[in-house]
Amino acid sequence: MTAFVTVMLRPGILDPQGLAIADGLAGLGHKGVQSVRVGKVFEIALDDADNVQERVTQMAKDLLANPVIEDFTVEVR
Amino acid sequence: MTAFVTVMLRPGILDPQGLAIADGLAGLGHKGVQSVRVGKVFEIALDDADNVQERVTQMAKDLLANPVIEDFTVEVR
Repeated sequence: MTAFVTVMLRPGILDPQGLAIADGLAGLGHKGVQSVRVGKVFEIALDDADNVQERVTQMAKDLLANPVIEDFTVEVR
Repeated sequence: MTAFVTVMLRPGILDPQGLAIADGLAGLGHKGVQSVRVGKVFEIALDDADNVQERVTQMAKDLLANPVIEDFTVEVR
């Protein structure tokens, strides 16, 4: 059982890495990029399938995301 | 139009950050975590909807992913 936690900066939080990438893409000739925002994804392999959504949500709250500046989503595949 | 590029280390490439997170989760009492792998996600907002999949794939090849050690997927939403 594998779960994916995607952590993105909350809207309104400045993302200098994303700004730098948007500039870099423009410099390489990629037109039409309005904005880039950068996040993290955690692929978590679990031993069993019990309450995966709930357990992984707790992992994200405990360790993976900073709720002051980040939002996260959990997807189980 | 928004595209998401997810970049993960290729299988077999050592992921020390993922190992540290797996240890951290175990230390916090989260049982049953086999492994954690960490990747990046780029949320790219585009002006128009022409050839998005193709254009964003080229952006990933040009700048976002290192093909020697990383794989990427492109998702358009």
